Amino acid sequence: MQPIALITDFGIADHFLGSMKAAILSVNPKATIIDISHEIPPGDINAAAVMLLLCRKDFPASTIFVAIVDPGVGSSRSAIAIKTGTQFFIGPDNGVLALAIKKTGFPSEIRRLENTRLFRNPISATFHGRDIFGPVAGHLSKGFAFNKLGPVQNTITQGASISVKVDSRKVAGNIIAIDRFGNCITSIEPVHLNKLKAGKLSAVIKGRKRLPVCSSYDDVLEGKPLGIFGSAGFLEISINRGNAARIFRLNRGDIVEIQGE
Amino acid sequence: MQPIALITDFGIADHFLGSMKAAILSVNPKATIIDISHEIPPGDINAAAVMLLLCRKDFPASTIFVAIVDPGVGSSRSAIAIKTGTQFFIGPDNGVLALAIKKTGFPSEIRRLENTRLFRNPISATFHGRDIFGPVAGHLSKGFAFNKLGPVQNTITQGASISVKVDSRKVAGNIIAIDRFGNCITSIEPVHLNKLKAGKLSAVIKGRKRLPVCSSYDDVLEGKPLGIFGSAGFLEISINRGNAARIFRLNRGDIVEIQGE
Amino acid sequence: MQPIALITDFGIADHFLGSMKAAILSVNPKATIIDISHEIPPGDINAAAVMLLLCRKDFPASTIFVAIVDPGVGSSRSAIAIKTGTQFFIGPDNGVLALAIKKTGFPSEIRRLENTRLFRNPISATFHGRDIFGPVAGHLSKGFAFNKLGPVQNTITQGASISVKVDSRKVAGNIIAIDRFGNCITSIEPVHLNKLKAGKLSAVIKGRKRLPVCSSYDDVLEGKPLGIFGSAGFLEISINRGNAARIFRLNRGDIVEIQGE
Repeated sequence: MQPIALITDFGIADHFLGSMKAAILSVNPKATIIDISHEIPPGDINAAAVMLLLCRKDFPASTIFVAIVDPGVGSSRSAIAIKTGTQFFIGPDNGVLALAIKKTGFPSEIRRLENTRLFRNPISATFHGRDIFGPVAGHLSKGFAFNKLGPVQNTITQGASISVKVDSRKVAGNIIAIDRFGNCITSIEPVHLNKLKAGKLSAVIKGRKRLPVCSSYDDVLEGKPLGIFGSAGFLEISINRGNAARIFRLNRGDIVEIQGE
Repeated sequence: MQPIALITDFGIADHFLGSMKAAILSVNPKATIIDISHEIPPGDINAAAVMLLLCRKDFPASTIFVAIVDPGVGSSRSAIAIKTGTQFFIGPDNGVLALAIKKTGFPSEIRRLENTRLFRNPISATFHGRDIFGPVAGHLSKGFAFNKLGPVQNTITQGASISVKVDSRKVAGNIIAIDRFGNCITSIEPVHLNKLKAGKLSAVIKGRKRLPVCSSYDDVLEGKPLGIFGSAGFLEISINRGNAARIFRLNRGDIVEIQGE
Repeated sequence: MQPIALITDFGIADHFLGSMKAAILSVNPKATIIDISHEIPPGDINAAAVMLLLCRKDFPASTIFVAIVDPGVGSSRSAIAIKTGTQFFIGPDNGVLALAIKKTGFPSEIRRLENTRLFRNPISATFHGRDIFGPVAGHLSKGFAFNKLGPVQNTITQGASISVKVDSRKVAGNIIAIDRFGNCITSIEPVHLNKLKAGKLSAVIKGRKRLPVCSSYDDVLEGKPLGIFGSAGFLEISINRGNAARIFRLNRGDIVEIQGE
């Protein structure tokens, strides 16, 4: 099985998602499709890039990811597929795939999608999810040869990067995503803490509010805040049974620091 | 494969959609179900009819569409299935299927769903998606004979129609749907423009605002409006990387005209 | 087929649901997954327990239900699976499974999920849907022996109960759920009415507003309220083609009485 996993900004109220799935299943009636999210804010390439980064490792090694946030649809931006290890990534070349690719640790092969025999015919100027990306994913999931998708491209567009500053006293990152429960996922990973002196760690938000870094929500009392390395491997700012983003008015981009004792 | 494609006003917060899918899979455990949308506003028959019109052609030729917006559930309205070409359409006979059927170009055979052996037992008075429409779709997807669903019915209820007025100087249509990105889909199709003199076309909204008709969003600058024949084959009013419905305060029903030079 | 049916408070905007499905499909690539709802308000155990109660009977006899509303994830609450008849129920032991289990009419076997070989490795402290519940559901759907999931547990945590008071003149229940259409589902079932004198029944809301109990929405005029035994087998307060919750400002917990003549 090569499941096809979808991230888009299509929402679920319009017919777009259904039409794209119809396009996939028209090519491969046995395709297994997994929805990651379709609630990326319209045109928010960075939000989709971060989401793909957060969940990529949760998927089978053979997964074909399709990420479509494509405000430049119909323009000259290229459509690409990337092979890293045994996973594939398909989408517009606008940065939506960049963060996840960088983290795979595998070399990447990039192909521009130019094999028009794989596409829907005719191709619209406004809906390449249905006309190009979906059909190509369907063909790949049936074993179509990656190197026949189109010519090699050497680099991909880098979207917004996520950054972490490390020194011997502290590590500074940013909030890169906020989930439904108000947990604020930062760019800080365990590896960034290597230079800090061993001992008790604190997370600092808003430049002054200091929270303990714990290993379980219940390490603090109900309603109390904490830092915790969450399920995607990044430090998160949370409140035990509460909504940290709302209580502390945290937003994407806000700085979070980790300090040793 | 005969996929089953669903449009309803059930939303996704309640258990209705899951229960209807359970009913389908109870009949045909191997059914392939594609969600088109479940966010039709409660009781908005016309919105569902238009959505089915916009996406029908995107689906495989063997698709079984089930469209349930059914404010009259439990009343005397009949439940029907329609065969046109190789596609099937199932739903209440209240107009929800009418626009799509009219456009297929195939003759239609209409059957009233009266073969109670196919239904869930007992049948509730309030949830025919689970008790009638879902199970019937499940049986059809397993190859159950269409002509054994129930007696022939000669006509179906026509819901709201969509109209276009054509003369030699202009074509006037209406906004029939607005998508998540603020694109305003009108009732105007390329065929309606045949009588206009060749040359540059303009779309006129609000009776005076004049937009160029283009073939790609990027034919205008970012933030600029345009008319464009969209992915469903209808003229749309859009803004390149913007939200036309919001900026111009456009609503379903608003008039859009196309004028030649 | 043993379908896996999911109720969570994950929402659909984050990647959580996709990651949990990926975990299920990693174990059993052929699993059939049915979404019941992921829009349970964050942490609202009771809402999920009621939803499972309302829809359980709609699902195939072999269904594996997974209900995850888990504000105590990572704490000492146990993770359990319950076998009743041929259905399985998986979730945290916090009451989310309790209402549905009580109604099955079958004896239940409860197992604590402690067979760590079935889990994802490593296990996060914050996302047991991906790391424990999903994989266990995947294994069960492939025929893994229920009695090898972990040790027997004798009782489960009872969450909020739903109650009905019955006397010879009236039956008093509560609103336990409100659906998208504004129908207010109460705790009252047909069996509770046995002691009432035969004859015409009325539903009383807000302590005084009296509505006829009917068998179809269309038994009252459009826009008029009624009581009706709905598709889940419970008395509902509705308005024919209207929204009863909004018009009467009804909320979960509000008392509804049924009175005889």
